[in-house]
Amino acid sequence: MKKGIKKIGILGVGLMGGSLSLALRQKFPKVSVWGYARSQESYNKLKKLKILNKIERNLKNVVEDADLIVLALPIEVISDYFMRIVPFLKKGAIVFDLGSSKGEIEKNIMKRLPKEVNFVGCHPLCGSEKSGAEFSKKDLYKKEVCLITSSPKSKATAEVKKIWEELGSKVVFVSSQRHDKILSYLSHIPHLISFSLTDGFPKDHPKFILQSFKDLTRISLSSASIWSEIFLSNKKNVLSDLSRVIKVLKKFENLIKKNDKDKIINLIKKINIKQKHLL
Amino acid sequence: MKKGIKKIGILGVGLMGGSLSLALRQKFPKVSVWGYARSQESYNKLKKLKILNKIERNLKNVVEDADLIVLALPIEVISDYFMRIVPFLKKGAIVFDLGSSKGEIEKNIMKRLPKEVNFVGCHPLCGSEKSGAEFSKKDLYKKEVCLITSSPKSKATAEVKKIWEELGSKVVFVSSQRHDKILSYLSHIPHLISFSLTDGFPKDHPKFILQSFKDLTRISLSSASIWSEIFLSNKKNVLSDLSRVIKVLKKFENLIKKNDKDKIINLIKKINIKQKHLL
Repeated sequence: MKKGIKKIGILGVGLMGGSLSLALRQKFPKVSVWGYARSQESYNKLKKLKILNKIERNLKNVVEDADLIVLALPIEVISDYFMRIVPFLKKGAIVFDLGSSKGEIEKNIMKRLPKEVNFVGCHPLCGSEKSGAEFSKKDLYKKEVCLITSSPKSKATAEVKKIWEELGSKVVFVSSQRHDKILSYLSHIPHLISFSLTDGFPKDHPKFILQSFKDLTRISLSSASIWSEIFLSNKKNVLSDLSRVIKVLKKFENLIKKNDKDKIINLIKKINIKQKHLL
Repeated sequence: MKKGIKKIGILGVGLMGGSLSLALRQKFPKVSVWGYARSQESYNKLKKLKILNKIERNLKNVVEDADLIVLALPIEVISDYFMRIVPFLKKGAIVFDLGSSKGEIEKNIMKRLPKEVNFVGCHPLCGSEKSGAEFSKKDLYKKEVCLITSSPKSKATAEVKKIWEELGSKVVFVSSQRHDKILSYLSHIPHLISFSLTDGFPKDHPKFILQSFKDLTRISLSSASIWSEIFLSNKKNVLSDLSRVIKVLKKFENLIKKNDKDKIINLIKKINIKQKHLL
């Protein structure tokens, strides 16, 4: 991290923001990490957790003088908060977000980005089915991929890339359009499928569970508010991928109905090969 | 295990049969475990692996004098092999299988079961996406649930139950009808979903993968021949459960199309609660 960085402000101190604060404070002990608490309740909670250098209920106090601002907020409010902090941002400040879908946010922010402010779109590919600052881990970002959707050419992007790398992440550049297309199939659809598998579970529970079922439904504990926003903010890709998966399920349904063992075997063999290439 | 048991024959020495041989030989070093190899190729392979006391290409030699016979075969041929070995079985011999679907096998075997032979339906809830004797592990059955679908009242069932428990498994009794209903949703549908998710993957592969995607597609490496048989042998349950899951996916599809965030949130919240109860 550049020597000039003395104060970092985090808006939205949940699992991601909280873990980032722990990681930053460990790696850069001289930097002061401030967090914004919207409610008195979350203020009190964060106070107890001791994961920040300072907690503020006043947005302006967090943002002014900060060299770096992290928008670790729900997707839905990232653009709004960006607009709200613009008047307080100092010249040359760098703002980055951690949103799981990027196209809409980038469009909204870039449209109204002031001249002397830098915005970098980031999406660290880690997390947990758990949410909340109390689950923060200082190693959450270590050895994980962080996608950056802003141009690799700008100085601000280079600085943000450096910080992620110093925290142990591997940075990959990808356009926000491609990001949303890839993430739809790699993450959003698996969540939709996992939610649906749990929802369809018959009422009559057995006394045992299977590893395969556990693996497929682990993420169905994921947050309702976070995931409803993700699905809607990446609607076009999600709907197109969802209909593709349903089509394959119906292909299996049809082959099973017709007892077409040979075609089922061929289909699964093709899938086996595809999966080996994917992993 | 009863003192009288001196010879055990295993038909079908793959991952399950091979692991069972290793476990039995470790726990009961005085017992001799024989394996049947259908082809010269598998005979040679098993010879090298040294997981059995004796390998035979002659079915009669494996079965005669054996106190216990394990049908660790593909579902499709379990009933056939049972009929083929009946003439060689000694009086009082116990035969058990390891099949992943039970109703059809039980029906076929019980219809033609000779008087002095005992059959016990078993399904150990473990395994791997890998198949083949070379992946055998002596601890495969340790701490895992083994379902027994035969009546808990018979002496033969009690003996088989005891053996599984001595190998470290936890035995649960369940009727074969209920077994097939439960396993459809806990295992067969997750495999269908996992296969479909991999199959639908867009051609344009990214350079990174996500944990959630990995978790959901791990089992899509599973064997085509084994799983095509499982789906077809439990057709009725699998088709009914599959259509239930597709219905939920379409419910999500519909809510996303309509941007109905509130209903998506409510649905996921309900699913979160269900999942907590399930695990």
